[in-house]
Amino acid sequence: MDFQSFQEKYNVKFKNEQLLKQAFTHTSYANEHRKSQIKDNERLEFLGDAVLELAVSQYLYRGYPLMSEGELTKLRANIVCEPSLHKFSVQLGMDKLVYIGKGEEATGGRSRPALLADVFEAFIGALYLDQNFDATLNFLKSNVFPTIEVGAFSHAMDYKSSLQEFVQKQGQQVSYQIVNEIGPDHDRQFVAACYIEDRHCGEGKGRSKKEAEQRAAERCLTALKQTEQ
Amino acid sequence: MDFQSFQEKYNVKFKNEQLLKQAFTHTSYANEHRKSQIKDNERLEFLGDAVLELAVSQYLYRGYPLMSEGELTKLRANIVCEPSLHKFSVQLGMDKLVYIGKGEEATGGRSRPALLADVFEAFIGALYLDQNFDATLNFLKSNVFPTIEVGAFSHAMDYKSSLQEFVQKQGQQVSYQIVNEIGPDHDRQFVAACYIEDRHCGEGKGRSKKEAEQRAAERCLTALKQTEQ
Repeated sequence: MDFQSFQEKYNVKFKNEQLLKQAFTHTSYANEHRKSQIKDNERLEFLGDAVLELAVSQYLYRGYPLMSEGELTKLRANIVCEPSLHKFSVQLGMDKLVYIGKGEEATGGRSRPALLADVFEAFIGALYLDQNFDATLNFLKSNVFPTIEVGAFSHAMDYKSSLQEFVQKQGQQVSYQIVNEIGPDHDRQFVAACYIEDRHCGEGKGRSKKEAEQRAAERCLTALKQTEQ
Repeated sequence: MDFQSFQEKYNVKFKNEQLLKQAFTHTSYANEHRKSQIKDNERLEFLGDAVLELAVSQYLYRGYPLMSEGELTKLRANIVCEPSLHKFSVQLGMDKLVYIGKGEEATGGRSRPALLADVFEAFIGALYLDQNFDATLNFLKSNVFPTIEVGAFSHAMDYKSSLQEFVQKQGQQVSYQIVNEIGPDHDRQFVAACYIEDRHCGEGKGRSKKEAEQRAAERCLTALKQTEQ
């Protein structure tokens, strides 16, 4: 993959291709080419980090209207963190475009998670500078947010706490009950029901009672969210 | 001050005044008025924090083209932190507009730095939602960034390190020399000169040798910045 096909594949078109290339330039490469005054991606990474924080914050704020600030903050930290950004970077094939120094290449720098996470942030920073916030948001909507939607971060979401906080604000109580156990012993699944006061408001299935309750709370939150809108 | 005069004073006009009021609503007030379903400012604070991070990052990125990523990050952390946000909040008179619960009011909550810093962030979040990023940036440019420009954060800026990093990238060396000491013993001031290789590129004055060198490095960086543009 080259920069041309990368841009075509992800439907972006940089006005300033130098900026695009700078986003992929590790400091080890810039150091090896000092005379040509090549700029590395570190300052772009600084900017991109903030662009990404806002894009993800806005996405979560709008997408999860019932989630508390604490829960939102936790989820954001799970999305904007090195392991996630590394994953996005590899998914997009960014590792193939990185300019790194010879020493760094020899020691496997091209696949180093921290380096690739930085490249992802630097790319976001470059896109923001070259175009604007909305264009950057569109890129993320097409290429990154779907990963969030398929539940890749659901391990970080504590639906029971979210629901608890929400119903407490209304002065109500939430409770759970295991209403069914299915499957043979070695492959047992539980079904939990969730109640607000005495009203049944969702069921969930899981390999543990806790997981079943989390799924039930999630369904219940989704239902409440639809009612509120 | 009421919300009307606050908006007039700072030249903002909310389309959705509820959102403006929500930004000033501490959770203790919302808890005391549960029946009227008043929303507190916590989710707005989550969003505002990210808006502020990006606004400040962009401001620093553009304003300090020679500053390294490490230096930018340090400076941003010094601007987007509780003591600074508390100061901005008080400067803008936000403390007078806060809705807090009776218990919180009785224990001096209205002047609590953390509470006021949160209100500042929530206001920024509300402005962003009600309008857009550019409008929020304009508000900050008029009312907050000037505080940065007058050097309120210069204690956080290590000009000597910035200059060092910059000249090293060009393969050059920087050095300092105390060229004068002025004033009587009890009010001594030092004058430092800064050299890149052997070229004199700035002088600075200070009450300690270190301070004088920092000021000299700052002058030198400003000169280099002008040359680069």
